[in-house]
Formats: sequence, structure tokens, C-alpha cells
Amino acid sequence: MYHIALFGAGRIGQVHAINIAAHKETQLYSIIDPYDDGAQKLATQYGAKVQTTEEALADPMVAGVLIASATDTHAELIEMAARAGKAIFCEKPVHLDLDRVQECLKVVEKSQVPLFVAFNRRYDPQFLTLRNQVQSGAIGKPESLIITSRDPSPPPAQYIKVSGGMFRDMTIHDFDMARYIMGEEPVSIYAQGSNLIDPEIGEEGDIDTAFVVMKFASGAMATISNSRRSGYGYDQRIELHGEKGLLKANNINENTVEQWSDFGCVSAKPEHFFLQRYEQAYRAEWQHFTDILAQRSKPECTGFDGEQALRIADKALESLITGKEIQM
Amino acid sequence: MYHIALFGAGRIGQVHAINIAAHKETQLYSIIDPYDDGAQKLATQYGAKVQTTEEALADPMVAGVLIASATDTHAELIEMAARAGKAIFCEKPVHLDLDRVQECLKVVEKSQVPLFVAFNRRYDPQFLTLRNQVQSGAIGKPESLIITSRDPSPPPAQYIKVSGGMFRDMTIHDFDMARYIMGEEPVSIYAQGSNLIDPEIGEEGDIDTAFVVMKFASGAMATISNSRRSGYGYDQRIELHGEKGLLKANNINENTVEQWSDFGCVSAKPEHFFLQRYEQAYRAEWQHFTDILAQRSKPECTGFDGEQALRIADKALESLITGKEIQM
Amino acid sequence: MYHIALFGAGRIGQVHAINIAAHKETQLYSIIDPYDDGAQKLATQYGAKVQTTEEALADPMVAGVLIASATDTHAELIEMAARAGKAIFCEKPVHLDLDRVQECLKVVEKSQVPLFVAFNRRYDPQFLTLRNQVQSGAIGKPESLIITSRDPSPPPAQYIKVSGGMFRDMTIHDFDMARYIMGEEPVSIYAQGSNLIDPEIGEEGDIDTAFVVMKFASGAMATISNSRRSGYGYDQRIELHGEKGLLKANNINENTVEQWSDFGCVSAKPEHFFLQRYEQAYRAEWQHFTDILAQRSKPECTGFDGEQALRIADKALESLITGKEIQM
Amino acid sequence: MYHIALFGAGRIGQVHAINIAAHKETQLYSIIDPYDDGAQKLATQYGAKVQTTEEALADPMVAGVLIASATDTHAELIEMAARAGKAIFCEKPVHLDLDRVQECLKVVEKSQVPLFVAFNRRYDPQFLTLRNQVQSGAIGKPESLIITSRDPSPPPAQYIKVSGGMFRDMTIHDFDMARYIMGEEPVSIYAQGSNLIDPEIGEEGDIDTAFVVMKFASGAMATISNSRRSGYGYDQRIELHGEKGLLKANNINENTVEQWSDFGCVSAKPEHFFLQRYEQAYRAEWQHFTDILAQRSKPECTGFDGEQALRIADKALESLITGKEIQM
Repeated sequence: MYHIALFGAGRIGQVHAINIAAHKETQLYSIIDPYDDGAQKLATQYGAKVQTTEEALADPMVAGVLIASATDTHAELIEMAARAGKAIFCEKPVHLDLDRVQECLKVVEKSQVPLFVAFNRRYDPQFLTLRNQVQSGAIGKPESLIITSRDPSPPPAQYIKVSGGMFRDMTIHDFDMARYIMGEEPVSIYAQGSNLIDPEIGEEGDIDTAFVVMKFASGAMATISNSRRSGYGYDQRIELHGEKGLLKANNINENTVEQWSDFGCVSAKPEHFFLQRYEQAYRAEWQHFTDILAQRSKPECTGFDGEQALRIADKALESLITGKEIQM
Repeated sequence: MYHIALFGAGRIGQVHAINIAAHKETQLYSIIDPYDDGAQKLATQYGAKVQTTEEALADPMVAGVLIASATDTHAELIEMAARAGKAIFCEKPVHLDLDRVQECLKVVEKSQVPLFVAFNRRYDPQFLTLRNQVQSGAIGKPESLIITSRDPSPPPAQYIKVSGGMFRDMTIHDFDMARYIMGEEPVSIYAQGSNLIDPEIGEEGDIDTAFVVMKFASGAMATISNSRRSGYGYDQRIELHGEKGLLKANNINENTVEQWSDFGCVSAKPEHFFLQRYEQAYRAEWQHFTDILAQRSKPECTGFDGEQALRIADKALESLITGKEIQM
Repeated sequence: MYHIALFGAGRIGQVHAINIAAHKETQLYSIIDPYDDGAQKLATQYGAKVQTTEEALADPMVAGVLIASATDTHAELIEMAARAGKAIFCEKPVHLDLDRVQECLKVVEKSQVPLFVAFNRRYDPQFLTLRNQVQSGAIGKPESLIITSRDPSPPPAQYIKVSGGMFRDMTIHDFDMARYIMGEEPVSIYAQGSNLIDPEIGEEGDIDTAFVVMKFASGAMATISNSRRSGYGYDQRIELHGEKGLLKANNINENTVEQWSDFGCVSAKPEHFFLQRYEQAYRAEWQHFTDILAQRSKPECTGFDGEQALRIADKALESLITGKEIQM
Repeated sequence: MYHIALFGAGRIGQVHAINIAAHKETQLYSIIDPYDDGAQKLATQYGAKVQTTEEALADPMVAGVLIASATDTHAELIEMAARAGKAIFCEKPVHLDLDRVQECLKVVEKSQVPLFVAFNRRYDPQFLTLRNQVQSGAIGKPESLIITSRDPSPPPAQYIKVSGGMFRDMTIHDFDMARYIMGEEPVSIYAQGSNLIDPEIGEEGDIDTAFVVMKFASGAMATISNSRRSGYGYDQRIELHGEKGLLKANNINENTVEQWSDFGCVSAKPEHFFLQRYEQAYRAEWQHFTDILAQRSKPECTGFDGEQALRIADKALESLITGKEIQM
């Protein structure tokens, strides 16, 4: 039984708490959160302790840490945990600044602890099925990738301020997905964006609607379509065109019931947001981290993957600002 | 160029007129209808003559007749046309009385003219595709057939009175389809029905909602689900389960546009009624009749098929009245 | 925390074990199974005890029992548990003999313990959504119900022997569903069946393919289409036609990925069998039983429901044997 | 009855011939084609004459011309027909050179004859339904448009040579569609492309796979995904995201039959190519031209529309070559 210290008792921390507690090889051992009430509440619910960062990292019972705290604390916590010899599961991103990411990854490398950067969508059974099919040659060589990724509704402008901007906060998942599906690195990128949904987002200097085009070394291309608001739930789809046809991963809908009437045929909307859509992905990524703890596996998604996705996000922003295609 | 005399200038006659006129091997030569205004109007539209029954059948220019007149005139017109040596295309049914049908078919047989009984659904590309797939062995031996056939809204009680009742008027198409798909004859039948939609239909002694179960010699079974009202257009679906899986022919919808919003995902309804849904079938059955005229083909759907469908309808009614399964 | 004694460590017992253990208000306290190895293994996995029937029922720690043992033990275990004052969750059926069921329910009534008969499909989110929509008037008055229920592949003939026959074993779920959706009792029933799949099933005197038609007091009707083998997974669909249109609950498929190629557009099959398809239903029915234990709810599905479903199954069999519609 | 002179007896000319001949207000009067055998054959089929360009334009019987000849003859034929006072239906494009287009349109303007530039997709019932729904406010203000347009298989390199390149030949339809759906002009464009399918296309200096991003004055954006080869038929889809949700126009498939088996659920491919997919569109655009002839309507799609689509294509090519976003 591996004892886990969970950093962050917020929304995403709570998702992970369920899976840590439910897994027969792991136990939710302690919660660390500057907001003490949140930490206490979550700890009580799962029979875990509340610890400080220092206590947790010094505690020999702790085999691994799950970092689900505020974004700006990730890099430092990773470094501290690495030095303390703990296996690390970190929510994306490592940091919003690329130099800081590289610095942090050096510390991890030196310490030789495993670091898993949790791009949850890689563990979604739909996208995994699609990727397995590509890799088995179902459609031959990939040529055109189309990623649709739209949130149900925009976050508060308050959040935008600390988010690093749309590309580093939201599109970063799609950049990782593009690399994951295509199995190669982009060589150029172009991004276009608008502030169409919430003027307050524009006032923070950010966009809320974007299109990105990437070209890969093989000549294959990818486009990403993003919006902070769909109007119909969480829209998470992938289309991959190859030599012999198309693979499509569609949304998961809330249910399978249809109503046919004089007004048309109505079926259910996509699952509302990431907590619902990626419920299975969160469970599967925890299984993977358990395999890492048990030394049955190495991290499939590494610090380097986190770094690359951020690098692409930075270049996308540069393209948006300059109106030019940027070479990677 | 084969000259065609069209009996009946009503709704279904007008559908056939389009196809007769559009086909490069046939010409709409004359219209026969007791309602003179209707005949004149249709004749003018297509540059055809108005004739009496006697004139048309005596006219050596007339190669074939299309009988789309009132149901109770079919048998007599078939006999007259047969005696006049004209090739015959007749809308279902030959007659509502089985004895009269048999009498009529004897006249046809003696005259040796081709008689095509127009069960239009056999020419629907969806059902044809399904049948071709069964026959090519796609699902192995057929085991369970489920036919869904629902009209958008009930006809006036006035029509019910002369219709022969739901089984002889509406379900007859499904009885024919069951024989056509299964490739064998039913050995028993059970029917259950209700008057749920329009009380006036009940007052005419008829039902408007029905379920039928048939068993075939091979042990395979079929069920038919009928209603005089769907609330969402014309519902025409077939499911056929066999040894190796399922074949389904779905509805054709009015368009392919979807709207996704907070209220769900809305797509278009099925095509409204038979004129829309079976537009291609009407064209294809006319092509078949042209092949008969040109002696490139024999009637694929014969007087015997018309007789069998009516026989099954009669047994269904007997089952409904007696509450018993009827042996064929 | 309610302590639960689980009778039966087989396939379905294991499903329930997961949910009992995962629920924060219940604990898997003990396992009772004549096959000691199975009991020990399951007990070890969940940190539970192995008990005898007598020990469990005499144990004051046990608040409720879950009966997932062999069918022919259900009635006796229910009676013993009732006399011991334990809340009872029982897998369907109570017993295969209607008189025995009635006898058993009298004992339950006298003891005043809650008895929940677990028709799992009532807790499937798809069917629940459909039912909620009917009850909210979405399609007006229900008129025609079409239940499709097909297993992926037939059970061994060995199982058929003790199953009570297709209607009491398999269709019983659909009889319950029909009552549940329609909200009224059938007044007549007709059943037709064949042995098409496995000759050994026929040698046991059973069928493997069936159609059933029921009529309700309101004139509404239902049909059930059953097969012991689909060839494509577990087929669990409902269509309900009403005054204003149709509600359809479709299958849940294994994933949402499509492949489009020269051979057509391929999407995933339905979930393989009940363990996958009804995973959420099993969790939800356990939540309901927890509510019963905590006296927040009364059993929504009672001994009477179990009795009625069996009564309908008996009448279906009578119809199959006699070839007659049977009045209830 | 308007008499029509048809320039071009090739594949697309034959499509138009069917509709001209079938329409009750128009007659296929003459065929003009330098390839005499083709002209004769088509003329014979429809009882039309064969004429020279000069004869047709001097013939007072000719009310309108349909120009479906080789691309490089369009501009000159338009000018000649305009001077001869004939109403003009011209297949896209007017010319591959923008200056020549502008020159030609001046001649048309002076002559005051109606010129209809036939962007057939505007008349597709799917796209028309989508546009009507946007304009009725179904999804509020348009924000992101995603056009998928893929041919089943690439044309011969021979054709590529005279095509004007992918953007002027193929994407031009999508540029027009973007303007048509969005109801505004793009202000910037970016294009990326690759030669992935047929090396001979690359040898002609062209691409066969492309992504385009356009931004409009309102801040709304559009992306176009093109390929000369799909592997599964003609892929013609539109997604339009707006304030209140999404409108999607899906492909029309070859039929509605599904096969469910152990290998998954297979449904039919999209219609093979434009002749099938846009059959209704060709009929509808001819209806529109008949309305123009009868002065019931002005051209909905004008020379200016043809010019604008070409201008966007030119800018896309400039972007592809320079690797920069181009301002319009």
C-alpha cells in the first residue's frame, strides 16, 4: 500500500482524492493545503492527516506526492519532492515560464525520482482507442489532424489573470494531444484568436476563441479549434485523416435517450465538463502512477512532454502577436 | 417509346405521372379519371389526352396501363386491360376481397399479359440494400425481423370506411415486406390492436395501433409495429437479426443539419410521408415496369404476391377478432 | 456504517461486493457461500469475514443482507433474514414458483423488514431518463412500447436446466420494465418462440428466441423481442411511442470512435454484457438500498413487483404452449 | 419556354443538360462543344441542335447560355454572350486571373444582362438549411466556422496543370461558402499546405492537402480543411459555432443501412462525389436561373462573388508561399 500526500484540496484535488482512496494499492495519507478548512474537510472525509509541506516531504511513510495545488507552486513543490526522493504526480503545467520548467526538470533528473506530468486526456478511452488504431495502421500514415476543444462556459476574468493566457492554460492540452497522436514534433505554428465571448477576458489581454495550424516534419498538419464557451457542454473531439481514411473520436453524451417529435429528433448534450468527460481518464492515469510507484512502468508522460507543450504554447502566442507563422 | 394510359389522376396518380413522363422510354399518353377536371388538368400538364376507359383499352397506341384509381375499381380494370392485351402496372391492392383477387388473377393468367403489383417499398434503396446484404449472407440465416411502420397522422374516418381496415390497407405493405425479406411464407400469425388515436376510427370498427407477430416455417419470426400517427413524420424502419448479427434500415431524415445547444442536440425528423420517403422507390418501380414492357424482365412482384399479402391481412384480422394465433 | 452480509460469492455477488465496499455508508462485513474457496477469496479481498447462514443472521452487527446466491435458495434465505429482522436486498427472482413466492412474501410482510427486489435495469440511467421524460409528459400518453433485449451469446445448456426457462429467467426483466415504464398492469399476453440458436437449449425444452405482445388496460400495447444471442454484444433498447412522439433509449457503445474508409463507417459495438452495461445501475441500486437502510426511502421495487413479473412470465409460457392469447 | 444553349458537353455539362431538359420552363435547344462527337451525342439524346458559338449567340431563339466549357474559355464566352444580350449561367470560375475577371465583369455590367456564377454548394439543401438557421438567429452571432471539404481521390496530374492550383480550383468553393455563411468579408488569411498524396501533384508545383484560417471584420474566424483524397467518398461538412451553440451540416450517406456484428457497427459511406452529393443542388440552381430568366429573381450569386472567391484564393496562395498571414 503506497501512502500518498496530496497537495491541493480544491476541485481537481478532490477528483484525485477519490481515485487515490479507491485504488487498492494506494492510500490517501495526507492533505496539504494553505487553506486549512479545505484540507481538514478532505482529510476527514478520507481518514487522512493534514500535514504541512515540510512534514509531508520529511515523512518516511509518504511514497508519492500528487501536486494539484495552484499553478505557481508546482515547480517548487516538484523540486522539493524530488529532493526528498518522492515519486511525483503533477497536474499540468510544471510552470508557465519555460526557463523555470527547464530548471525544475534538471533538479528532477538529478534526483532520479519518477515525474509523471498528468495530461489527463491521454488516458481518455476514446482518444486512447483512436491512437491505438492509428498505431496499428488502421488509416495508414496520418495526414491531417483536427482537434476540437471547447469549454462549456468561460472562467472568471480573475482566473484568466493567473492562467498564463489561453494557449498556456487551455490549448496546452491540445498541443500535447497533437504531439501524442501524431507521434512527431511540429516544425511550424500559426495562431489566430479573438475576444468574442467575454469583454473582461479581452481587458486582461487574453483571447477566448482561437484557431491554430501546425505543420510537422513529415508534412502532416494539425488544426486546433478552441473556445472558452460552447453553449452545449464540453466539446472534446478529434478527427485524424490518413492515407486510407478517417478516425473520429466523438463526444460522450449525457445519456443515450432520444426524443422524436414534430420539432425534430433531440438527443442528449455532451457531458458537461472535464470532471464528467474525463472521469475514466482520471482513474486510468492514477492506475498508471500506481504502476510507476510499483516500478511496473516508467512515466509515459514526462517533464519533457510538459516542457514541449509549453514551448508550443509560447510559439503560438508569438504567432498571435506578430501575425506570422513561427518556426519551432 | 411506350405509350401509357394512366387510370387515376389523384395524389398517387400524379406521382406516377412524373416518372412516366420523365422516363426516356415511356410517354404519358392518356389520363382516365371519372373526375374530369382532374384528368384534364393532369393531361394538360404533360401534353397527354383524356380518354375513357373503353377508348384507352381499345387504343392500339397504348402499350401499358397504370392503375392508380380507387381501390374498388382495380380488379375490373385489371381484367379489362388483360383482355385488351395491355401490360399492367397496378397499385396495391388488387381487391379487398380475396376471392375476387383470385378470380381476377385467373383472367390475367389466361390473357398472358404481364401484371406488376406495385408494392413500392420493395424498390426503396434502403430496404433493397438490406435485402441484398441478407441474401449475400452478411448476417447468416435470418431469425428475427422487426418492422416499424407508422404514418405521420391518421387519414379521415371517411377514408377508413372504404379502406378495408388497417391490416388490408396499411399493414399489407409490411406483410409483403416480411415475405420479401424473409424469403419464406408465414405459418402462423397473431395480431393485437387498439383504437388509441382517433375515436372516429373506432366508430368505423377499425383500429389505429397494432402489433403483429408471425412465425415462419424455418422457426424464424417477425413482428410488425404499426400506428396511424407518429407525431414526427413517416417512420419506416426494418431490423433483421440473424446468426451473425443485425441489419438495420433507418429512416431518411429531412436533412443532415444538427443544432447543439443547452437544450440538447437536435437533428431533422424523418421525411414527412410516402411521397418524400419513397420518391426514389416510385422512380425505380417505374424503371422495372419499363423493363417489363421492353421484355427485359418479368414482373418481380406479381398478382400472387398481392394475393398472399391480402391473405395474411385477412388472417391477422381473424386473429384480432378471435384473440387467437391463426395458422396459415 | 451499515454492515452487510453477502450471500453468494459468484459473478453477481462480486459486482455487489465492489459497490458495498465502495459506499461510504456500508461495509462488506461477511460472505456466505457453500463454496468455501470462493467465500474466502472474496472475504480476503475486502477484509470481510466468512460466516455461515446461521452465524450471519444471528449476528447483531449485520444490518442488511444481500442475497445473490443460487436462485433456488432465495425464498428460504429471504424468510430466514426476515425472521432475523434484517433488511433484505434480493437478486431476482424471489423463486421460480409463484405459490412459493407468495408464501415467502407473507413471511416478509409479517416481519415488517424492508425487502428490495433488485431489478437492476430500473436503475440504468438511460431507462430512468426515458421514464422521467414520459412521466413529465414529454410524449403525452404512452401507446406502444418496444423492448429489445438480446444477450451476446447463449448460456450453457446446463444453466438452462435450472433457469426456469427463457421467460422466467431472461424475459422477466423485460416484463418488469414494461410494467415500470407503462405504469399499469397488462391485461393480456401472447408469446411466440423458437429454438434457433443452440439445439441443446431445445433439448432442455426451452426456446432461445422470442416475441411477446402485451395489452394494457388503457389499450396501450407492448412488444418484447428477445434472443439468447445477438452476435454484437448486449442489446438493450427501449422505444416508447406516445401521443406526441417517440422516446428511445439506445445502447451504450464501447467507445465513441468511428473509422471511415472505403468499406464504410465503422463505430463501436454495444457494451459486451450486463456487467459493463449496467455498471452504473448496480451502483445506483446499492445507493437506493443504502437509503432504505437509513430509512430515507422505502423499497421502490418490492416483493410484489417480483411476484407480478413472475406471474406474467408464467402466462407467457402458457401462451407459448397453447398458442393462445392469455388473459391476466 | 426558354431555349438554352449549352457550352460544353463534358461531365458537368451533362449534369446541367438533365436539369435544363427536365424543367418545364426551359428547353435544351443547342449544344456547343469543340469536340464534335460529344456535342452530337448529347444533342441527339435531348433532341437538341449542335451549333457553333457564333450561331448560338446570333440565334434569336436562344434566351440564355450555360457555360460549362473549359475554364480558360469562360471569360471570353461570358463577354460574347453579354454582348449578344443573352442571360448567362457560368460554372465557376469566371477566369483564373483576377484582372481578366474584372475586365470581363465590366463588359457584363455594361451589357446589363444577368450573370449567375454557379457556386453549386450554395444550393445544397443541407448548407441552405444551416444558413437559414443562422440567419434566423438559432445560434446567435457566428463565431467559428469549420469547413471540411475532401475529394474522394485526386485528379490526374494533367488536370492539376490547368487547374490554377488547389486554392483556385478546389478551395474556391470553400472560400465562397465561408463568405456565404458568415455574411461578411475576411480581413486576413493564412494558408498552410503539403503534397502528401500524389508526388506528381507536387511536381506540378501544387499541394494536395491544406488548412486555411481566415479572420473576419467582426473577429469571427473560419478554418478550411482540404484534401484531394479522403479514402471514403466525398466529405462535405460544415460546423458553425455561435453565441448559443453549434450548427452542423453532415454528409449525406449512400444509404441508411447499418450492419452490427462482432466487428462493430458499420454504416454507409458518404455519397461518392459531387455528382451524387450535389444532385439536388444542381437542380435547385437551375431553378434559380429559370427564375432569373423569367425576371422573378436577380442572380443571388454574382460576378462579384466569383471575383471575391478568386481574390481570397490568390491571397491564400500568397500566404502559402510567404509563410505569412496576409491582410485582404
